[in-house]
Amino acid sequence: MTEITRVRIEHDLLGEREVPADVYWGVHTLRALENFPITGVPIAISPYLPQALAAVKEAAAEANHDLGLLDDERHAAIVQACQEIRRGELHDQFVVDVIQGGAGTSTNMNANEVIANRALEILGHPLGDYMRLHPNEQVNLSQSTNDVYPTAVKIAVINATHDLIAAMGDLQEAFAAKAVEFHDVLKMGRTQLQDAVPMTLGQEFGTYALMIAEDRTRLREAVMLLHEINLGATAIGTQLNAPNGYVPLARQHLSRITGLPLVTAVDLIEATQDCGSFVQMSGVLKRVAVKLSKICNDLRLLSSGPRAGLGEINLPARQAGSSIMPGKVNPVIPEVVNQVAFQIIGHDVTVSMAAESGQLQLNAFEPVICYSLSAGLYRLRTAITSLTENCVKGITANTEHLAMEVANSIGLVTALNPYLGYQTATELAKEALATGRGVAELVLEKGLLPQDELERILRPETLAHLGPKPADRSGGV
Amino acid sequence: MTEITRVRIEHDLLGEREVPADVYWGVHTLRALENFPITGVPIAISPYLPQALAAVKEAAAEANHDLGLLDDERHAAIVQACQEIRRGELHDQFVVDVIQGGAGTSTNMNANEVIANRALEILGHPLGDYMRLHPNEQVNLSQSTNDVYPTAVKIAVINATHDLIAAMGDLQEAFAAKAVEFHDVLKMGRTQLQDAVPMTLGQEFGTYALMIAEDRTRLREAVMLLHEINLGATAIGTQLNAPNGYVPLARQHLSRITGLPLVTAVDLIEATQDCGSFVQMSGVLKRVAVKLSKICNDLRLLSSGPRAGLGEINLPARQAGSSIMPGKVNPVIPEVVNQVAFQIIGHDVTVSMAAESGQLQLNAFEPVICYSLSAGLYRLRTAITSLTENCVKGITANTEHLAMEVANSIGLVTALNPYLGYQTATELAKEALATGRGVAELVLEKGLLPQDELERILRPETLAHLGPKPADRSGGV
Amino acid sequence: MTEITRVRIEHDLLGEREVPADVYWGVHTLRALENFPITGVPIAISPYLPQALAAVKEAAAEANHDLGLLDDERHAAIVQACQEIRRGELHDQFVVDVIQGGAGTSTNMNANEVIANRALEILGHPLGDYMRLHPNEQVNLSQSTNDVYPTAVKIAVINATHDLIAAMGDLQEAFAAKAVEFHDVLKMGRTQLQDAVPMTLGQEFGTYALMIAEDRTRLREAVMLLHEINLGATAIGTQLNAPNGYVPLARQHLSRITGLPLVTAVDLIEATQDCGSFVQMSGVLKRVAVKLSKICNDLRLLSSGPRAGLGEINLPARQAGSSIMPGKVNPVIPEVVNQVAFQIIGHDVTVSMAAESGQLQLNAFEPVICYSLSAGLYRLRTAITSLTENCVKGITANTEHLAMEVANSIGLVTALNPYLGYQTATELAKEALATGRGVAELVLEKGLLPQDELERILRPETLAHLGPKPADRSGGV
Amino acid sequence: MTEITRVRIEHDLLGEREVPADVYWGVHTLRALENFPITGVPIAISPYLPQALAAVKEAAAEANHDLGLLDDERHAAIVQACQEIRRGELHDQFVVDVIQGGAGTSTNMNANEVIANRALEILGHPLGDYMRLHPNEQVNLSQSTNDVYPTAVKIAVINATHDLIAAMGDLQEAFAAKAVEFHDVLKMGRTQLQDAVPMTLGQEFGTYALMIAEDRTRLREAVMLLHEINLGATAIGTQLNAPNGYVPLARQHLSRITGLPLVTAVDLIEATQDCGSFVQMSGVLKRVAVKLSKICNDLRLLSSGPRAGLGEINLPARQAGSSIMPGKVNPVIPEVVNQVAFQIIGHDVTVSMAAESGQLQLNAFEPVICYSLSAGLYRLRTAITSLTENCVKGITANTEHLAMEVANSIGLVTALNPYLGYQTATELAKEALATGRGVAELVLEKGLLPQDELERILRPETLAHLGPKPADRSGGV
Repeated sequence: MTEITRVRIEHDLLGEREVPADVYWGVHTLRALENFPITGVPIAISPYLPQALAAVKEAAAEANHDLGLLDDERHAAIVQACQEIRRGELHDQFVVDVIQGGAGTSTNMNANEVIANRALEILGHPLGDYMRLHPNEQVNLSQSTNDVYPTAVKIAVINATHDLIAAMGDLQEAFAAKAVEFHDVLKMGRTQLQDAVPMTLGQEFGTYALMIAEDRTRLREAVMLLHEINLGATAIGTQLNAPNGYVPLARQHLSRITGLPLVTAVDLIEATQDCGSFVQMSGVLKRVAVKLSKICNDLRLLSSGPRAGLGEINLPARQAGSSIMPGKVNPVIPEVVNQVAFQIIGHDVTVSMAAESGQLQLNAFEPVICYSLSAGLYRLRTAITSLTENCVKGITANTEHLAMEVANSIGLVTALNPYLGYQTATELAKEALATGRGVAELVLEKGLLPQDELERILRPETLAHLGPKPADRSGGV
Repeated sequence: MTEITRVRIEHDLLGEREVPADVYWGVHTLRALENFPITGVPIAISPYLPQALAAVKEAAAEANHDLGLLDDERHAAIVQACQEIRRGELHDQFVVDVIQGGAGTSTNMNANEVIANRALEILGHPLGDYMRLHPNEQVNLSQSTNDVYPTAVKIAVINATHDLIAAMGDLQEAFAAKAVEFHDVLKMGRTQLQDAVPMTLGQEFGTYALMIAEDRTRLREAVMLLHEINLGATAIGTQLNAPNGYVPLARQHLSRITGLPLVTAVDLIEATQDCGSFVQMSGVLKRVAVKLSKICNDLRLLSSGPRAGLGEINLPARQAGSSIMPGKVNPVIPEVVNQVAFQIIGHDVTVSMAAESGQLQLNAFEPVICYSLSAGLYRLRTAITSLTENCVKGITANTEHLAMEVANSIGLVTALNPYLGYQTATELAKEALATGRGVAELVLEKGLLPQDELERILRPETLAHLGPKPADRSGGV
Repeated sequence: MTEITRVRIEHDLLGEREVPADVYWGVHTLRALENFPITGVPIAISPYLPQALAAVKEAAAEANHDLGLLDDERHAAIVQACQEIRRGELHDQFVVDVIQGGAGTSTNMNANEVIANRALEILGHPLGDYMRLHPNEQVNLSQSTNDVYPTAVKIAVINATHDLIAAMGDLQEAFAAKAVEFHDVLKMGRTQLQDAVPMTLGQEFGTYALMIAEDRTRLREAVMLLHEINLGATAIGTQLNAPNGYVPLARQHLSRITGLPLVTAVDLIEATQDCGSFVQMSGVLKRVAVKLSKICNDLRLLSSGPRAGLGEINLPARQAGSSIMPGKVNPVIPEVVNQVAFQIIGHDVTVSMAAESGQLQLNAFEPVICYSLSAGLYRLRTAITSLTENCVKGITANTEHLAMEVANSIGLVTALNPYLGYQTATELAKEALATGRGVAELVLEKGLLPQDELERILRPETLAHLGPKPADRSGGV
Repeated sequence: MTEITRVRIEHDLLGEREVPADVYWGVHTLRALENFPITGVPIAISPYLPQALAAVKEAAAEANHDLGLLDDERHAAIVQACQEIRRGELHDQFVVDVIQGGAGTSTNMNANEVIANRALEILGHPLGDYMRLHPNEQVNLSQSTNDVYPTAVKIAVINATHDLIAAMGDLQEAFAAKAVEFHDVLKMGRTQLQDAVPMTLGQEFGTYALMIAEDRTRLREAVMLLHEINLGATAIGTQLNAPNGYVPLARQHLSRITGLPLVTAVDLIEATQDCGSFVQMSGVLKRVAVKLSKICNDLRLLSSGPRAGLGEINLPARQAGSSIMPGKVNPVIPEVVNQVAFQIIGHDVTVSMAAESGQLQLNAFEPVICYSLSAGLYRLRTAITSLTENCVKGITANTEHLAMEVANSIGLVTALNPYLGYQTATELAKEALATGRGVAELVLEKGLLPQDELERILRPETLAHLGPKPADRSGGV
């Protein structure tokens, strides 16, 4: 026997519909659930978006109240509802699919309905009693999806990016700490996977710290572009039906509520159709993914082995690698980071296509842009945190093996060029390769250089252009 | 006060850990949850994968039993557990993240642990009593992640693809029905968005039906390649430790269980590292997405208006389009399909990069390939079904407006080429464009052709090369 | 002083223009040169396209002649001109840019003008004397860019693909020959870059041969789809102004001229706007690129060293690797193949976007699709030929080093599982890793197995599941 | 009979070879020609790269001379040769393929050889007389491909970007001029291709001007990151064999020669392997492409017609559109811009993959990164210039048609919301849609508003939030 669910009746442009009696969302959300059963993932998968929507609605209510368009009672109820959502409550009521048609209208209406019904509840009225407080007339007052939605998405992306930058900071510090730890560990540098000239493992890890640091700077630049909003633009940017004074008031309230230095776009028509700042953010996220994937490729390569690989470093064992091969441990953490990177790079194509396809005064495809960025930011952050905690912090070096590689290396011959000449150096290299012997050994045997001078030339500090050991390299850039 | 959760102790290569007492998964799954908190989406998001894993495990148990490696009691319990999972039970126990390192090992171990514990329960033993029935020793017997995982992914993708093809069949029929309905509706064809020559709306919709039909054929071809499996290859394809006779037996059981005509790859080493069939499937999915997006672009364009657009067809209203603009209805269903298409095209880049990055004897990045394909197949299917039911079936034509466009069109002049010559036709076109008058009107006024001949030339059947109205065009291709 | 160039006067819809007196192209080509100075690369960069255009024009002339629409004299002159172009002459007259607006109209008009002027010359008339033989009226008779251009592009792509398949055949043979040469060379297999279980280098190279063979099969399938043409469809597929009987006649002549089993599409309206077969071909090319790049990644990895890398194989030295590091040799040939693969994968995104953006009855972006496919096919072929000749054929193995890796490997312990049990095997693996000693050595020392049995278990044939040495594996698949 | 070509003998690590006697390149270039016959396009296709290479070589020669490592005579000859190349001479000697293995070594050696031989000629010695002046020993002194090549690529990209920004400035001005010209032209704005609310055509074109302006700013930011160079890093960034003082001297000379504010990277090891600034530039180029393609989509849509399209604007006729349809004119210029945009977006995937695939201390795939960026910058520039000159400057408006659209529009009802209420407005909208009548007409008929008030409300300035007509909007941002 099916459970009898209590319902309430709501209506919209298309007619009357029953919605479950106890949900905060209403008929517009119901339509969206029927129209867009696409991914099964609700917009609340990212807490940033419901919170940002509530912040925008709260700012609009404040501005409308300031302008005398919203009475004290309803203003207070709407503001309280928004604050609850910003604190993390009611997120289970944000149920529309992350992928939806309609340029975000369904997301905006979901927010309007949840806030209206929670406000009605606060005011002591039953859910759905919209004559007293209407999702559209009061909660959405002076607004349009076309300014509310992109503004909320920008705030959500900004906040998610700040959390990503923080997680990247931890990774940067972990690499920098390893750079200090491995400061003196001499090893062979490689170009095109072929032995090149000596360096230290500390230099190698210092490089990774710096790459992450630079990418954090690029993210900070990209995120600044998202602070330009179009709140008050209404339908197409002409501010039709937005009251005088609304635009600056709404922006000021939103800045205060979010703590972000938001600015209103100079040209609201341009700002309403433009997805440039999203494309830019996606491109920079892709850059982060590309660099991070490169680093993880290196970590997997350097830790290959244990016997038949490069065997230079050891990643901490995190789980059994194989049910069939006893004792096998695999680089599973870098592997998952690689995969997230591949997703980000794919998302960037999605964002580019969605942005390119926007027509005339509005881009109808902002939901997939929002989802691509949000998913990317979330996954990059979780993957990076796993990389920091479950991998980088526990890396150890096979110092002896590394030293032996340098001692045996033919690449040492490069350092002798200025002393023996290129021609003699080439002959030495050929002989070393053919006989399997060491360069230093051959130099001494042939009496080409005295032992003390040879040792001086081949000192790690000289070869690797090594600076003094830093106290700490974890500072920002 | 925190709830005290009952736990049981399990151990693996890395030591002892507590797992909740009442879950079917075990310590390997626990490690994966800690290592890969990447997306928050468990592998059970797709029912196809748990079911496919269970099918493979059941087939392996049968083969091991046939070969005398698994006793009757444990064989029966394992088979029963697998059959329950294949019926849709226990899917909430498949908890590891869709994105994971380790080439699918965590997914395989999650399956091994769930099946082992359910089998222990069936046999009347406590969960975790692995001395009696071990996830690795019995459930994974004769197997390796490296043959089990890709085999299960292929079965999951095959089944998801069949469901997609069926949904596409409904869309094809809906377009074909419209092609019949609009068989006689004359309209202007366009090339490069400029008016070209006449055709019918039925021809236009017939084109869409045929495009979908062709794409279904391409999907059927691509899915055939996935029937080649490497079950029995074990670690790298050399069948090390797989008993004699296991390979054909396991394949026969799996074919019987799944009802699929599976074949064992000729070269198991190649098959174990090769992702070619996944890349091919992704490429064909992308093709479907490209074509579908093109169709939806057309639907949005043809229905643009209602006053200042092409206004040729009407999409059914599915939800209020705007909170600020009364009466506005937007093409939200095609818009969501476009967005899914952009995702599929992005996923294809992800799949390409993951496949390209596989090294030596195994591709470690199969989980992101599996996820990309699974998500794409699911979303294409849900989006297509929404398109069929919520949009295409309800499309109507603005027949009068379309007829007027043809009557007014300068493109008609093309049909007069053979009668008036190219030079005269060009003069007529210029005059019509400059004066805003109709071509037929000018022809008659100038006495270039008698009215009956002109009418004969400009008959729809002639202009549009129209065949007889089909009874039904919904058949397959 | 500037050279005085003799000119002739031509005119089109937009007015009169001077063209150089001695060129075969005319005013339409001149307009295109002015409108599209995009890449600086003329369409003649690919000889396949001018030849295919000439084939189509010749077939159309034959069909028109058969139908009595073209007189003997002009028919003969046009056919002779086309045959000259098909033999490789006059290609320097195909000057319009590879990237052009207009859906290929400029390419078609370039061909019409060159053929008309050469035909005029053959007939003893001056260039530009179009009253006697007109580029549009005679050379383009019964045709439209919208059927001629895609038909010619398909023929060009088919022929370029056949040449690619042949080049891939040589690479397949080279890998197969190495598989025979290295049949007995035992080495460690790796999964996730970690040592796994033994295999042979012959198996590894046999895998590459098979991958190439499978991709050739996929190309052959994809190229079949391109044999469906829309010649005779004219502007939008309604065959407006194409004479009765033209469609089958033109197709028959074109099949005869090209030697290809061409078929006319069932629905010419669908065929005229559809880019599905190009998208499919691009997707399969991308598959080839992905697999080839994977193989080259492996070759670079296996040849890393000479001292601090895997050092399993040696690629032939093809050029000095470094001006600063004496004796360094780099894997430059695989590196260039990787880069071509990255281009192909990028091109596939371009093709997808171009196909997705086609609107209504025609895709205006076919030129960039044509260019992307043509450039990809050319570069894949040249890169593959360089890989075959300059790299694969000269690869040698470091057999002793490989054998030592196996002897030292902990992965050997996997093969002892059935004899010692998983638990003992795991203890052995741990001890070997901790002490740096060999597994076999430890087994003997501990008396776990007698030496003769151990040797039997660790025989290459057993470990690697090695079949008999093939006489030749270079045959097709 | 084959022509007898005079040759000279050169040798390298691999042996002796004949090169044509009169070419300036030598044996290393010959090897590259044989190894990389990939695209048939030489690096001189972009004049920026040979010029940048010459600038770097000149700077290095100056630094070496300052440090006493290069004598006056050879210094003078090398500097003169470099200056000739920077003036555009000898570019035909830069013959190696744009796609090459070896991380740019072949490009660097091509430059070394051309400069050496031209310097030898200047000094009165025969070509190839390297005992007197050696490509490696003198021209490449203190350098490595790994610092020279990326430095030269950066300079080439910087200069190409500046030229692109200038071309974009012209386009911006052209759009801004149209914004002024169309300042008062009222039209319907559209969201999701459906009629929305009124705006002006001037606002629409002003948006395009601003989009281009913003993208120029983003390009200026991205190009700044390319000013960080690694000249003096030598092989892997440890400056091995680079003399003390060389790094700052070389950078100072290069800044002076190029006029660019170059800085040396703080961490040369990181800088030598990092491709971040290239990835960033590619991402921003992609952003430009996305926005530009969006604009061109709009131009094609707005000019659709002439009878059965939107028909709002007219693009200037640039060439006959069709051989079969008399008088047809197509939007060929925007179409070619779209196609270039699709290429740029594809290139970005290529660049991402190449950057991601770089291993350890060097990215071996910089040549394809260089080519992708260079081709993209060139094509964007040529396409934009064609768009400016051949399209935007000649656009005209169909002012009457636009005005009629507004007058007939149901979207007008939105402006009546504050006066009639949302409910009444909705009823009006429904009636207008059903009857085909105008909103204003119905309002007056029903006596809902007096005519003068209605006219005031529907004034263009009010509806479109129109500011005063600017004297000029073409200034920068």
